Amino acid sequence: MTDNSFGTIFRITSFGESHGRIVGVVIDGVPPGLNIDKNFIQNELNKRRPGLSNLTSSRMEPDEFEILSGVFNNSTTGAPLSIIVRNEDVKSFHYEKIKDIIRPSHADYPAYVKYKGFADYRGSGRFSGRITVGYVIAGALAKMILKDYGIIPFAYTKSIGNVWDNQQYSCENMNKLIALRDSSPVNALNLVLSNEMINEIETVKKENDSIGGTIKCIINNVPPGIGSPIFGSLESNISKAMFSIPAIKGIEFGIGFKAASMRGSEHNDPWIIYQNKIITSKNDAGGIIGGLSTGMPIEFTVAVKPTASIGKVQKTINIKVMKGVDLKLEGRHDPCIVPRAVVIVEAMAAIVILDELLKSGKINTSNCKEVF
Amino acid sequence: MTDNSFGTIFRITSFGESHGRIVGVVIDGVPPGLNIDKNFIQNELNKRRPGLSNLTSSRMEPDEFEILSGVFNNSTTGAPLSIIVRNEDVKSFHYEKIKDIIRPSHADYPAYVKYKGFADYRGSGRFSGRITVGYVIAGALAKMILKDYGIIPFAYTKSIGNVWDNQQYSCENMNKLIALRDSSPVNALNLVLSNEMINEIETVKKENDSIGGTIKCIINNVPPGIGSPIFGSLESNISKAMFSIPAIKGIEFGIGFKAASMRGSEHNDPWIIYQNKIITSKNDAGGIIGGLSTGMPIEFTVAVKPTASIGKVQKTINIKVMKGVDLKLEGRHDPCIVPRAVVIVEAMAAIVILDELLKSGKINTSNCKEVF
Amino acid sequence: MTDNSFGTIFRITSFGESHGRIVGVVIDGVPPGLNIDKNFIQNELNKRRPGLSNLTSSRMEPDEFEILSGVFNNSTTGAPLSIIVRNEDVKSFHYEKIKDIIRPSHADYPAYVKYKGFADYRGSGRFSGRITVGYVIAGALAKMILKDYGIIPFAYTKSIGNVWDNQQYSCENMNKLIALRDSSPVNALNLVLSNEMINEIETVKKENDSIGGTIKCIINNVPPGIGSPIFGSLESNISKAMFSIPAIKGIEFGIGFKAASMRGSEHNDPWIIYQNKIITSKNDAGGIIGGLSTGMPIEFTVAVKPTASIGKVQKTINIKVMKGVDLKLEGRHDPCIVPRAVVIVEAMAAIVILDELLKSGKINTSNCKEVF
Amino acid sequence: MTDNSFGTIFRITSFGESHGRIVGVVIDGVPPGLNIDKNFIQNELNKRRPGLSNLTSSRMEPDEFEILSGVFNNSTTGAPLSIIVRNEDVKSFHYEKIKDIIRPSHADYPAYVKYKGFADYRGSGRFSGRITVGYVIAGALAKMILKDYGIIPFAYTKSIGNVWDNQQYSCENMNKLIALRDSSPVNALNLVLSNEMINEIETVKKENDSIGGTIKCIINNVPPGIGSPIFGSLESNISKAMFSIPAIKGIEFGIGFKAASMRGSEHNDPWIIYQNKIITSKNDAGGIIGGLSTGMPIEFTVAVKPTASIGKVQKTINIKVMKGVDLKLEGRHDPCIVPRAVVIVEAMAAIVILDELLKSGKINTSNCKEVF
Repeated sequence: MTDNSFGTIFRITSFGESHGRIVGVVIDGVPPGLNIDKNFIQNELNKRRPGLSNLTSSRMEPDEFEILSGVFNNSTTGAPLSIIVRNEDVKSFHYEKIKDIIRPSHADYPAYVKYKGFADYRGSGRFSGRITVGYVIAGALAKMILKDYGIIPFAYTKSIGNVWDNQQYSCENMNKLIALRDSSPVNALNLVLSNEMINEIETVKKENDSIGGTIKCIINNVPPGIGSPIFGSLESNISKAMFSIPAIKGIEFGIGFKAASMRGSEHNDPWIIYQNKIITSKNDAGGIIGGLSTGMPIEFTVAVKPTASIGKVQKTINIKVMKGVDLKLEGRHDPCIVPRAVVIVEAMAAIVILDELLKSGKINTSNCKEVF
Repeated sequence: MTDNSFGTIFRITSFGESHGRIVGVVIDGVPPGLNIDKNFIQNELNKRRPGLSNLTSSRMEPDEFEILSGVFNNSTTGAPLSIIVRNEDVKSFHYEKIKDIIRPSHADYPAYVKYKGFADYRGSGRFSGRITVGYVIAGALAKMILKDYGIIPFAYTKSIGNVWDNQQYSCENMNKLIALRDSSPVNALNLVLSNEMINEIETVKKENDSIGGTIKCIINNVPPGIGSPIFGSLESNISKAMFSIPAIKGIEFGIGFKAASMRGSEHNDPWIIYQNKIITSKNDAGGIIGGLSTGMPIEFTVAVKPTASIGKVQKTINIKVMKGVDLKLEGRHDPCIVPRAVVIVEAMAAIVILDELLKSGKINTSNCKEVF
Repeated sequence: MTDNSFGTIFRITSFGESHGRIVGVVIDGVPPGLNIDKNFIQNELNKRRPGLSNLTSSRMEPDEFEILSGVFNNSTTGAPLSIIVRNEDVKSFHYEKIKDIIRPSHADYPAYVKYKGFADYRGSGRFSGRITVGYVIAGALAKMILKDYGIIPFAYTKSIGNVWDNQQYSCENMNKLIALRDSSPVNALNLVLSNEMINEIETVKKENDSIGGTIKCIINNVPPGIGSPIFGSLESNISKAMFSIPAIKGIEFGIGFKAASMRGSEHNDPWIIYQNKIITSKNDAGGIIGGLSTGMPIEFTVAVKPTASIGKVQKTINIKVMKGVDLKLEGRHDPCIVPRAVVIVEAMAAIVILDELLKSGKINTSNCKEVF
Repeated sequence: MTDNSFGTIFRITSFGESHGRIVGVVIDGVPPGLNIDKNFIQNELNKRRPGLSNLTSSRMEPDEFEILSGVFNNSTTGAPLSIIVRNEDVKSFHYEKIKDIIRPSHADYPAYVKYKGFADYRGSGRFSGRITVGYVIAGALAKMILKDYGIIPFAYTKSIGNVWDNQQYSCENMNKLIALRDSSPVNALNLVLSNEMINEIETVKKENDSIGGTIKCIINNVPPGIGSPIFGSLESNISKAMFSIPAIKGIEFGIGFKAASMRGSEHNDPWIIYQNKIITSKNDAGGIIGGLSTGMPIEFTVAVKPTASIGKVQKTINIKVMKGVDLKLEGRHDPCIVPRAVVIVEAMAAIVILDELLKSGKINTSNCKEVF
């Protein structure tokens, strides 16, 4: 039951509920002397905030964070940071009405069994995507440190429904990619496809339905030799992090599932010397071999299931009376969670990569400003 | 660097190298009083043994295990089991010759960086698939305990190259599935497709090449409410375990990546009451929602990349002289690792599920024979 | 640097600083369905509150706790509890003046080295006894659960300065012991000695000095077989917990250091059958043998050093100018921390024992009301 | 039940039983490139070997270690080392005869409860001091690394029975202390007291009895700022390690329990500048304040209870028939375990200090030869 912490040296502990007083996070292992860029953190939080467009839930949350500990004179001290965000726009009456109804594709039933009926069901409680507010805050801190090493975890919407952006983007110019993405309301990189994705979302919204998608993440400048073989493989730790994000149902590294149909002669990435550096001439491995970073960009794609909450009538059961019912969900829901999940994927990626760098001794825990 | 242990209550520690004296495992957290079925363990080990057919590496390893501790009067004592398998058929001269050559799709280069040139490179050392001998042994122990609860982790070859078995199998009759699979040299369930898969492997073998594939795993009878939200999600822990198996590059739960193109109304699994039990009428979620088991079979599929070692000439570099070279690998390699990996996937699945049951208090750690 | 968490299943994470906004704790692993007795928690907190008598620091802290998460309808949900206490009566100017002075017996110098000058030095920051507010809160929760199993961790002041209470108290009537202790301003059990202890404290206070003491802890009704051999010994986990309390410098179990001068024939506790139960006729072992509970009361004593902060002039150095200085500390300090530490010792003992019971499967994590 | 591992970055896993095939250890987190000095390891093992004099058990164990993994070309590789020692001189018939008798001061009864009668009782199984063979091996590795940083954990016999060596030794000349100690059969530092201690042991041996003692440990050259406040305090981690050694019943740091009777003005160690270094003019704190190393020698003392196994007749019970019996233990026992435990205390101290240095980033995990 004690699984609300993640990471080894840079270690976060999540707490809070969707409709409770707060959501929050304790971040342990932050090196002392890091200047806190509050605007950056707020900006990251804004990227997952609801209520900002008609493509997202209408829940209005300012998502202003409060640092309760660990910062002194605007600098980290080496002590654990505890940071909370208050839940402001809580309307729990929708949930009160349906508290005996098992919502399809929600954790209601297994949570009922696990927590013997004591779980806070309002707004899905601990199972809500709102919990990821804490991930984004911790990820923002991790990004601040990684930035000094030139490492930028970057994610974008690769597909929504059947609209796929299959282009392979180079991360040579990360700032350009970021600008492109930030100009798209759905965090896509291609303007035409972005509009198609918006259409897709508007269509399902009109039909009281929802839609899934995929998010691709690229992390540049990770030095070779980070990670471990066996249980501490980069894939192991990244995947564990990604599946901590609600609604993620699949992950693949590099060319991923396509590798299963390939021959070795086709899939193997040839090593070459380029400008005196050892690199591979292509990157089907997604920057990871044997659990270790190769020095090439780390690339992975996650599958996001369609939002479980839909306005369409669904058949399900009332657990109290053990009878079938028709359920028409009210409340405020995202027709597609993918665009808001992009920053969450980045955040968890940043947390893993920073932790791995710290474990590898590449970042001196006593001084986050040292170079490797 | 300390990442050779896995699990919380049922916790394994891996050690050994491909061409060292042994490969082995310490298994901590085994409840006392478990009768050790040595034939069962050996039988599991035989499933991943090389040298048994012309589809696998010709390395001849008897893979006989020795229990060094933790068993008394043929029963577990509650003390940690340490179990080793000796490496018998070691031919390291192939590796001696190429120790400065970076083999494509192997961890040679990042391992060189990480371990500063001190890693045991013979037979890929810690990065070898041979390390999974310990997984299979620990998995066999986990399976022995799970069996008492009716839980059977079952995996089979879903695809090799372009030969796909897309049938959805019911796990009502697990014994029948097991018999079907065990009669196939490639661990497939469909006789016709099994032969096609064999052809595929034989073809690439003749061409000094290799091929990838996918493995599907189904675990029946897992009670609802196992696992955790957030960082301890079943998907998190299963995926971490799977990516600890060399060559795995992707994982999806239930319908997986297909969910990304689906609508909520299509993807959501309706809850129904069937024979007084709460189940879903389909299982696109793969038996996991919100990180918790739903009570439906847990289903996931992993992508296995083609064997990195191929006999074809490859372009790569010599790291000592920093020059390009043509590499033609000798040594003994599997043209396709998928069939031998099936039992490894099962083993790691068993380890995760047992650990989650122990964490959930469903199996009393003081007495593995108690029922839930 | 990531060492702000403690415990395995019942796991607490500490955060906050002495003169920051708050001190707090996240408590993970609390079983669902536990009714929160807020009065009990507040009462526990009051036992360590300063400002209540002239024997303690004059800092006035109401120490009212706020539950931010994990409780719904006044019951635990299985989600992590986060609980904070605000710091109200903060007077940091004393610390501002002396921030370059290394206070003797305080962590100023090593903290300066470790945190490169970034630590929050006000009121000793993370090194303050105020951090133990979170221990007491978590301990109160642990006690609530243990109470249902008849387990009561009980501590009292055994000595202050040279006033020693060497009586061996039976824990047959725990309520009587508690009443006795609670009637003593210094948490002693013997009225005469209590007055002597008070005199001792008043004497050192007048002399601008401080004094140490010892605290004995007795835990009744712990069933036999709890704990582990080797690294998980009860002594290992209890001692780790106790040395997490600032100012503790020694611990001994049972007869402790006296055992070092004893013969085996004298020290060994004879096993006898008494009222059909297996017990020992004396308890020099302090209820623990081989790291496991014997079923006898667990007994240990900790040594508390004299409060580091004293009003007397002390010789020390100014680290900025690297010169010797005379230091006369102002601020508000306890002449003797022992009485206020009694409830902290109990709290950490409760946390360890509950965690060990949970690990041993004696308390079902899914239902804290089940009996063993 | 999963408590057979210790440490964070330098992490050891213990396995094996007293009368099983082997005792052993897995050591994870050893940096690559460490040359293995096999003579040094063997020499360390010899220090705890039984059978070497009439002061110790007559069990004859060559205690030759075998490295099963993790070493290549006589150098560590970064992979986990697994090292075993075979049990050669096993005479289990003594234990067979008394397997239903609960030996006083042994873990027989609580182990029976915990392991439901399945534990390996021969030679006390997992509860035997023989388990510490693995500690000594891992400690020897830790010492090899620490030596490069000038850090030497040094322990000696401070008392046996009522013979106490209360001299405060300076660790300026560690080699001289080591030579002194190694010339004493009981690992004492004072020749006269050494002979008195030998007399004490011979006396109790003749009387079929046993005797306890204390061991003091001094660790020099630990830089300031190592360790953590709160749960990761040096005292917490050292005490946890020490209580993992069977028979340890107390620990005190620096002046320890004496601090409880002292005033602050007397106990506080004044900071001074000496040869441009910040030190304290005395070291009552034992080199640790606030959980952090001060830069002064770390000093602690542990209490060792008298050997539980004695030849004298003892009253106890037979658990099978639940009746009182007279027990006269045969088998081979140490009249005093203190001298053999000295090297074990050193080993566990070395393991903790190395782990803390690694956690503090003072030793680069990627290269154990880097200086701080």
